[in-house]
Amino acid sequence: MSGYFVAVEGIEGSGKTTQLRLLAALLREEGNQIVTTKEPGGTPLANRIRAILLDPQEDGMDPLTELFLYVASRRQHVVEIIRPSLEGGAIVLCDRYVDATLAYQGFGRRLDLDRLRSLNDWATDSIHPDLTLIYDLPEAVGLARARRRNDSSAHLQGESRLEGEDMRFHRRVREGYLALAVAEPARYAVIDASGTVDEVFDLTRSVVMSRSIQLSGASRRGA
Amino acid sequence: MSGYFVAVEGIEGSGKTTQLRLLAALLREEGNQIVTTKEPGGTPLANRIRAILLDPQEDGMDPLTELFLYVASRRQHVVEIIRPSLEGGAIVLCDRYVDATLAYQGFGRRLDLDRLRSLNDWATDSIHPDLTLIYDLPEAVGLARARRRNDSSAHLQGESRLEGEDMRFHRRVREGYLALAVAEPARYAVIDASGTVDEVFDLTRSVVMSRSIQLSGASRRGA
Repeated sequence: MSGYFVAVEGIEGSGKTTQLRLLAALLREEGNQIVTTKEPGGTPLANRIRAILLDPQEDGMDPLTELFLYVASRRQHVVEIIRPSLEGGAIVLCDRYVDATLAYQGFGRRLDLDRLRSLNDWATDSIHPDLTLIYDLPEAVGLARARRRNDSSAHLQGESRLEGEDMRFHRRVREGYLALAVAEPARYAVIDASGTVDEVFDLTRSVVMSRSIQLSGASRRGA
Repeated sequence: MSGYFVAVEGIEGSGKTTQLRLLAALLREEGNQIVTTKEPGGTPLANRIRAILLDPQEDGMDPLTELFLYVASRRQHVVEIIRPSLEGGAIVLCDRYVDATLAYQGFGRRLDLDRLRSLNDWATDSIHPDLTLIYDLPEAVGLARARRRNDSSAHLQGESRLEGEDMRFHRRVREGYLALAVAEPARYAVIDASGTVDEVFDLTRSVVMSRSIQLSGASRRGA
């Protein structure tokens, strides 16, 4: 596949979605073909699954039910959006992907990591990001940010099924992301997300520019 | 677990649902504690997943998306209904279960059977039926029955996402069920479903009565 695949990850309130938007704008200005998307969701069918996953009413959802719903959403997203976009030579920027399953279901809910990896590979035909940006900050700071955001925008209230987990859960998720990055530094970059939007975007830009050889390769092939 | 777990399986139009209802009534009359349930669905959350799975509008659903949705529904159903009912000593009669995944996704859609078995085991904590009744008849007869039923009851139209598959698909599903029964005769009984409701129920009753040692054991423990 000729495209380039970037995933952004991080705990709630890490600012990854804002950074993805800024990065997409920058790369688009530079003439790249950009596809932005997100998980769970990204297609009409996957969005129906997303609605179940984020519904705060579904507080009796078993951790494995949750896992299989995320993976169902991911499969449809890969088939309809991610694979065709990469095959078309685009730079795909995706808000959460396979590493979210490892961090949330693996480290957060303590499901077996090897099984999760094998399930991810099955669901995605082993289509992995070329680069995963992990926006890192203390979980208490992230959660406080996420709660302020929800208070001011009613349409995001749905995120509270995950935000309602206790602080130790979010700490395990954060530590999980860091552990993934340490184990495979070529595929991950950890970005300090505790600064202002501009400060964090400066960091984002330099990480992405340092990978510019692959990016411009994707761009050329996609042009 | 002190209960007894019976699954009924078969292609569309095999009459398994009617037989399940008759069997439940008979066993209840005999004083047994009976729980009847079905897949996909069986809990409010699983019913939300069922609505997606049976929606004829979702004709672009990838076979793996479909698989993961069935398994998500199954997990919630096992946790909320099947396991507690069996632990409480009930006879659980379930309309489709793990073997439907092997027959439809494995034989029908040609997904790998070993992977499906391992996913089923993960999703159910390896809670398997004690007895699976396979209602067998030629696929053309079953499909014709299912279509007559749909024509006369609008609320069943949703089943047409599966019924819309071609005849070779339904033949593979039928042959799949028979192959499962041949490989493990102690856990399966194949019942000729081509007769009238009463004729098929006579067969159902004799199969179940021939397993009455286990059934009365479950009943006694559940009483």
